[in-house]
Parts: sequence; structure tokens; C-alpha cells
Amino acid sequence: MKDDDKPLEFNNLDTLESYWKLQQLYRQDLWYGSPEAREMENLRIDSGGGLTYYYGAKLLSEKTLQTLEELAEEQQLIAKYRLLLSGDIMNTGENRMVLHHLLRGEPAGKPQQKIKEYRNFYLRELEKLETFCENIHRGKITGSTGKAFDTVVQIGIGGSDLGPRALYLALENLADQQGFRKMKAHFISNVDPDDAASVLQGVNPETTLFILVSKSGTTQETLVNRRIVLEHLQVNASSVDPKKHFLAVTSKSSPLASSEDILESFYIDDYIGGRYSSTSCVGGTVLSLAYGFDTFRKLLSGAAEADKKALEPRIQQNAALTDALTGIFERNILGYRSTALLPYSQALLRFPAHLQQLDMESNGKQVNRRGEPVSYPTGPVVFGEPGTNGQHSFYQLLHQGTDIIPLQFIGFKESQRVFPAASAGAESQKALLANLAAQIAAFTRGRPSKDGNKNFPGGRPAGLLLGKRLTPEALGALLAHYENKIMFQGFCWNINSFDQEGVQLGKVLAGDILAGKTDDSLLKSLSSVVFSE
Amino acid sequence: MKDDDKPLEFNNLDTLESYWKLQQLYRQDLWYGSPEAREMENLRIDSGGGLTYYYGAKLLSEKTLQTLEELAEEQQLIAKYRLLLSGDIMNTGENRMVLHHLLRGEPAGKPQQKIKEYRNFYLRELEKLETFCENIHRGKITGSTGKAFDTVVQIGIGGSDLGPRALYLALENLADQQGFRKMKAHFISNVDPDDAASVLQGVNPETTLFILVSKSGTTQETLVNRRIVLEHLQVNASSVDPKKHFLAVTSKSSPLASSEDILESFYIDDYIGGRYSSTSCVGGTVLSLAYGFDTFRKLLSGAAEADKKALEPRIQQNAALTDALTGIFERNILGYRSTALLPYSQALLRFPAHLQQLDMESNGKQVNRRGEPVSYPTGPVVFGEPGTNGQHSFYQLLHQGTDIIPLQFIGFKESQRVFPAASAGAESQKALLANLAAQIAAFTRGRPSKDGNKNFPGGRPAGLLLGKRLTPEALGALLAHYENKIMFQGFCWNINSFDQEGVQLGKVLAGDILAGKTDDSLLKSLSSVVFSE
Repeated sequence: MKDDDKPLEFNNLDTLESYWKLQQLYRQDLWYGSPEAREMENLRIDSGGGLTYYYGAKLLSEKTLQTLEELAEEQQLIAKYRLLLSGDIMNTGENRMVLHHLLRGEPAGKPQQKIKEYRNFYLRELEKLETFCENIHRGKITGSTGKAFDTVVQIGIGGSDLGPRALYLALENLADQQGFRKMKAHFISNVDPDDAASVLQGVNPETTLFILVSKSGTTQETLVNRRIVLEHLQVNASSVDPKKHFLAVTSKSSPLASSEDILESFYIDDYIGGRYSSTSCVGGTVLSLAYGFDTFRKLLSGAAEADKKALEPRIQQNAALTDALTGIFERNILGYRSTALLPYSQALLRFPAHLQQLDMESNGKQVNRRGEPVSYPTGPVVFGEPGTNGQHSFYQLLHQGTDIIPLQFIGFKESQRVFPAASAGAESQKALLANLAAQIAAFTRGRPSKDGNKNFPGGRPAGLLLGKRLTPEALGALLAHYENKIMFQGFCWNINSFDQEGVQLGKVLAGDILAGKTDDSLLKSLSSVVFSE
Repeated sequence: MKDDDKPLEFNNLDTLESYWKLQQLYRQDLWYGSPEAREMENLRIDSGGGLTYYYGAKLLSEKTLQTLEELAEEQQLIAKYRLLLSGDIMNTGENRMVLHHLLRGEPAGKPQQKIKEYRNFYLRELEKLETFCENIHRGKITGSTGKAFDTVVQIGIGGSDLGPRALYLALENLADQQGFRKMKAHFISNVDPDDAASVLQGVNPETTLFILVSKSGTTQETLVNRRIVLEHLQVNASSVDPKKHFLAVTSKSSPLASSEDILESFYIDDYIGGRYSSTSCVGGTVLSLAYGFDTFRKLLSGAAEADKKALEPRIQQNAALTDALTGIFERNILGYRSTALLPYSQALLRFPAHLQQLDMESNGKQVNRRGEPVSYPTGPVVFGEPGTNGQHSFYQLLHQGTDIIPLQFIGFKESQRVFPAASAGAESQKALLANLAAQIAAFTRGRPSKDGNKNFPGGRPAGLLLGKRLTPEALGALLAHYENKIMFQGFCWNINSFDQEGVQLGKVLAGDILAGKTDDSLLKSLSSVVFSE
């Protein structure tokens, strides 16, 4: 690892030699139009957790890949990842370390004492969580009327909602197939009161645990949803003592932490960003309650494996790095503005929504880590729905639209449920995989036709993450793959992927409106529109 | 309506005088940076169904709006809408009429005899549906074991899934609040067998009606899901006679229509495109079974009202037209590549997925209606999630990313559930609206800061569709607004918004793989990847 010896530098993408080399290269040297010459089988990388990343349909030449590797070296991507792991202040905007990798595996190399201490803190919270879940599942802790808990409701928004919800849904079928489901889970997120009302209608308060999830303990949506739940209990379940039905996942300094109205608290700290908190107690509490702590542990081990593989400096042996760099090529050299996430797995139905946050909130930045404007595009728009559903929806534009949109496919060889060999279920799974393969062929190569309406230009680059089955380990590795990919892209762009100043102004203005501070004519005008009779 | 006198011409966008005028105009004449000078309240249009469209935050000058009106006249948008309503072959690619407006209201003007006949056909199916639903709801038709039906499962994909599902979810809270829910509904769409398995686990076959929805009766996903359901019944509910538990929504010529294994069929025809079929029996059957036929009738009346308002030739009095033209300005003049749909209503959680299909499948085209390549961008990428959830997710990029993304806000002054005045629910609804107003202000005007990381550039154009409450009428008008907007944009681009040739190649190649026809080396390679052990 040569770049460990060099002093680390944080430079903008357009100051790199390799960047300008790529800008020159791409017009002469794409493999566009001839993907048939490639052996997809051999252009693959072990991504951890049983996942393999296939990049043969990315349509890049050997030379382009080599130059991307030069870019990785020149921009010191692996060294920066190591710096992050070592506890450096990588979240420059908020002056914080970035420690979510430490939630799921032992620190790499010889860690400093402070890193060991954070690791121990996270481990202690996990142990506390394991014991608590055992007590719930064995009926040692019951609801206030003596009944065993069978339902958990997570109250949180953004990172406290999207990731945990996506992971919960991803494992439902497997849990029911393999019998490891312990409780049912629901989620309340939106400040729209119809959200809480519809969840509350479907649960029995006597057997329900509510988890309040907010690092600061001051999130507007989460606090008002707590009040909605409390009022609901008061009216509809007066025999229930709320104190015995509420958990908190928060930081030690938050107002929630010291509350007497809470049965138990699990702690995170400022070094775990909201969107990176799925592998902390933010995701772990609801997942462990629903599926058992062991399931969560497996998810962490899959993530840890992917994290470790992301340390490999040779790009064609590091899936997250290859995915990141080809994404940079597509965004900054080819000029594509968005990218579609296409999981061929109904269980991943909300995974694109989580990755949308992870990617767009991390890398939707216009200034570098020193706060100076950058002069190149950063994070793209990310959207997606499960296949084959998407094929009957927005794929029309992906195949024949006027913009090229790079594609990120995800698939699994086996379904989560087990179906007998000749059954319709088995046939269905085969059709699912055939469609996955067919779409990649159609997107990359296309099919010319003299009838313009039937002409498929091809040239749409596609990556594929393929696993045997969507297990907790595979899910953890999948999550970590994208977290690390996004981190590497942030390093390429020299931005801070770990803060989110862009969400502040809206909060401030909403507060102004609610406080009646609408001297400002625009705010007054808008306020009068939405609040008019 | 002057343009009714001129002969109709179908010309590409870049042949229009007004288009080049706009290309010159936009650099001198944006209202960027000074939205505070405008009275948002007065820049509004009645959109039907109790909805109002506000375009004050679109940041266009009077002169730009005037030129957009010139474009509407020059491209004969209203005359083309009238032509479509009159039964002309507007779906040129498939040589078909486009009649979805006729599902929900009397034909405009003096319709030809054939139009009257189609209207009568649609009305007869509605009458049949009304009677059938009454018989189900009154228990005159029961399941094969004599139990009343309480659950309906829609089996369909694409337009047979996304629209009906979005509309069903949109009315759940209101139905429970107002007591008009008759049955619970579920949806099976994906060919992934885990999808069907997880729905089937949660329903009682004895009290469940399954609706097979496929116009052709040959949709791969729907047929294999039907088989999964039949096998499930055989194993888990052998007392149930499937013939008494299956409905079909299909065309008269489809293999499903003549099947003896069906309790009742409801018919559509080739002039109702899949993504435009939510207001046909495709959406109507599941909605009427779940919420009563009257609810569906109200939805149709809201849609009909919006359809009528879309006939108005003056753009600032036609919400769908103004929305369409400002979208053209953003896409073709300002060069923005995607647009975000942001409903401030949890009930609309799947509405963006439906509009994503509606828009991207309709207008993601690279050839004009004669099959000739166009030299300008057509349909944008459409994505979105409900607010305030999105605020804690991808809004970071919307506020501070390097690309500008136009925003489509939707909101309602009242929640669907009713909350007492001083309750947390009422406070929550107020906070929801304050956030909606605050975001529009933040996006359009921004807030400068010397700290680059805290600098909000503003200049993000935003439209707002605002209603009193999300009722069936408002929902119908909302749907029709977007259908008509997308139609007008298709006319601007001179493309056919009503076919979807781009979905064909993937189907063909998937069929090749399943039939073992993989002589082609790329297909063979991809096939061996996904089917390897």
C-alpha cells in the first residue's frame, strides 16, 4: 500500500492528473457497443457476506479501469478510509469523527486507545440490548398489564426510519420461513398525524413496545408523534402505564436519556451519523426485538466482512471501490445525472429509499470539505423500485429515453421462501433471474431497428451485486457496500459526506412560521396560502 | 379558441418560433432571487376536485409565461387534446385511440357515434361492477365455503398495480375515519415468489377474493402469480373452490375472459393504456370492493372535473397546462434533468411511484410520433417520497447539490383523520403545513452565507397543488391533473405518450433465456452468472 507512505492531501477532483487523463480518454476508448466480447463471469469481485460484484456490463475498457485505479491512488482513497477508521475528524463540518464501521467489527490494525474505548462503548450497548431482548422474548419483562410484548413500533424519521425499516422488511420472509420472528414491527415517521393514527389503529397497546429514536432527543416529528401515542394510550388504553411501554435510542446527553418515562435506553453518540446508524442500536433495537439479537449479530458480521474487503487497494479486487470509481466516471466524465437502483427482490422494496438518503444526503454537496465551492458535479439523483415491477414502469425511459441513466442491479439466486422444485414458486424465481439477466443484456447492448420506435440504442452501463440468498449476512454486506462506495465517492469529490447542513434552513423557517415570525413577505405569503380556510 | 380553426400540425418542439424565443429569453428575464416580490396567493388556478395549483414559486417572469402561452398556441396543445377526446388515433405507434378520459365523464362537445358507444361500454361495465360490489357487500355472493368476503387481493403489475395501489392507500385513513371501508385489500405484483408468499401468509382464503388484472391476459408475472395462489389454496385451503374466488379484469378477447375458472369478469379495451387505467375497472374493482362503488364514483367525478378544466386555452387558467409548460421550460430551456414529487401527505406514500410510471413510461421517448429521432430532451427522471420524511433524507441534495431539481409539492390543509383542537394530532398537522410552506421559501429564495457549507443558493423552482382534504374527489382530480400534464408535455415534444415499445426487448430476451435460446454469447454469459450454483 504505497499511498500509506505519502502525506495525505485533500484535493479537489479537478486538480488530479488522472481526472484529466480520463476526460481525454473516454471518447476514444469505451467498450460501448461490444459487451459481447467480454466474459461477464470473470469480471467479478467478492464483496463479502456471500455477495459478488459483477462489473462486466459497466462498459469500461481496461485502460479506463487502469486510469481509475490511478485516480484511486492519486486521491489516496484507501489511505483516507484508514484515516477515518483511525478516528480522525473526517466530518469536518461538524468537527466529528466518523465511527460507524466500529459498530460492527474490531478496529483494523493497531487502534489508538480512544478507538478501543469507543468500540467497548458500542459493545456494551449491544450486550445491554442482547440481555434486554432476551428478557422481552422470554416474557421476563412484560407490558404494564402483565401481557407479553408481541409488537414493536419504532418512532423516528430519516436515518432513524428509512434504514431500519428497509432492513426489517428485507428479512420478514426469511424470518417467517425459518421461524426466527419474535415480534411484529411497525414504523411511525411522518409529522403528518395520519401516519401515527393508521399505525396505532392496528396495534394492541397492552402488548406493544414503542421505541423513540432521536440522537438529539429534540426531533420535531418524533416528539410530536410521541405525544400522539401518549394521547392515544390515554383515551384508548387507560390501563396501560406508558412508562413501561417506551424505550429510547438516543445520545447520553439528550433529554430523552434522563427521562423517567422510559423503560430502558440504548445509547449512540455523535460519531454515528443518522443515515449511517442502521448498524447501531437505532437499527439494532427494532431488528433484535423483531428477529432476535442473533439475527442482528449476523447482519453486523456481514457488514464487517464488507468493510474489511473495502480496504483492498487494487480496484478490481475491491467491489465498493470499483463501484465508486465507475460511478465517478459516469457522473464526472460521461456527465450522467442520475442512477437507478434496481433490486430484483421484493424483500428489498424499501432499500432504494434508504440508499436514496444515504447517497443524496451524503454527497449532495456543492462545497468541498473546507467549505469552498467545487466546480464539478457531485452526488447524482438516486431512485429505484424492485424488479420486475420497475420493468412495467419507468424502464421505458431507461431503455429509450433521451438521457442515459447508469443502473445498479441487485439479485439473489434463491428466494427467501422455499418452494418445491416443480412449483409455480420455483418457476417464478427462475423467471425473476431470467429477467435480471435479460435486462442487463438489453441495456448494455440494445438492439438496432430501422423502426425508430423499436430501436434500442444500448450503451446503458450496469453493475450487478449478486448473492445466493438474502440472508442477514448478505444484507449487512449489501448495506456496507453502499456505505463504503458513497464514502469513496465523497473522497473523490473532496467533500464531507457526513454532515447535512442543507436540511437546516427549512427547519428554521418552519419554526419561524409556527412561532408567528412571518415579517418576511415571502414566508407570510406562503404561510397564508397553506393556513387559509 | 382560435387554434380550432387552423389545420392541426404535428411538429417537433425545435421547429417552433416560441421555442427559440424562450431560448433567448431565459437568461435576461428570470425572476430568480426575487420571489418575495410576488404574491403567492394570487398566482393560482382552480384545478378541479377542490384543488388549487400555485405557480408563484415557479420563478418565471410574466414575459416567459406569455411566451409559454404562445408555445401552447403554436403547438396547438388544446386542439390536440380535443382531437384525442374526439377519438382520433393519438397512439400512433399502436394505431389506437386514447380514451381514458371517457371512463370518467361525458364526452365533450358533440361526440361522434363511436365515442358514444365506447362511453356506453364503459358505463355498462361500471353498472355491472356496482351491482357485483353490492352483492359482495350484502353477502349475497359469498366464498365457496359460505363465508362473507372481507379481503380482496389484486394480482397485476405495472399499471395494474401502481395506480390502484397508490389510490387504495391514499383513501385508507379516510375510509376508517368516515366508516366507508368494506374490505381490506392487498396487492401481489412482482414475479419474485416472495411477494405472493408474504401476502398469502396474511389472508384467509375462505374470505378472500382474488382479482387477476391483465388486459392481454398473458402477462408473465400475473399468470405465474395466479398459479402460486392456486397451489397455495390447494395445499392450505382444499375446501375452497378457486372458481368462486377469482375475478378477472381484462379485455374481451383475452384468454382470461373466456375462462370457466372465473367468478366474474370486468372488461376494458385497447384504448385504455395500462398506466392510464386507474379510473377503469383496473382500479375501480379493487377500490369499489374495498371502499364501496360510491367512493369510486366520487373519484371519477373529481377526475372528470379536472379533465374539463384542462380544456381551457389560457394557460394561467389551466393548471395542467401551466404545470406542463413550466415543466417544458425547466427541461428544455433551463436543462434540468429530473423532477421531485413531494406530497406532504403520508396517505400519498405510493403516489410518487405511480406518477413515476405515468410520466417516465409515457414520455421517456427518443423518437417523435412518426418514429423519427428528436434532437432535444424529452421526459425527465421523476422520483419522490412524502414530506416531511424526504426532508430528513434526499432534501440535502435538493437544497445544496450541484444540480437544480424542480419540485412538485402537494399538500392538504386538513388531515384525513380528525383530531381535537388542542391535541398533538392537530399540532402535528400544523407543523406539517408549516414545513411545506417553509420548504418552498427555502428552495426558491435560499439564504446566502459566507460559510459555504451553510450557503443556500435558492433558485429551485416549485409548484404546489393544494387541497382542503384528501377526499376521493380530490384524489381523482390529482390523478387527472398529472395525466393531463403529461399528455400536454408529450404534445409539446411531438412524441407518442401512449405506447411503451421500450419494455419489449427485455421481455423477448427473458423469454429466450427461459427457452434455453442463449446462442448469443452475451446472453449466455449473463445467464450462466445468475443461474450458476
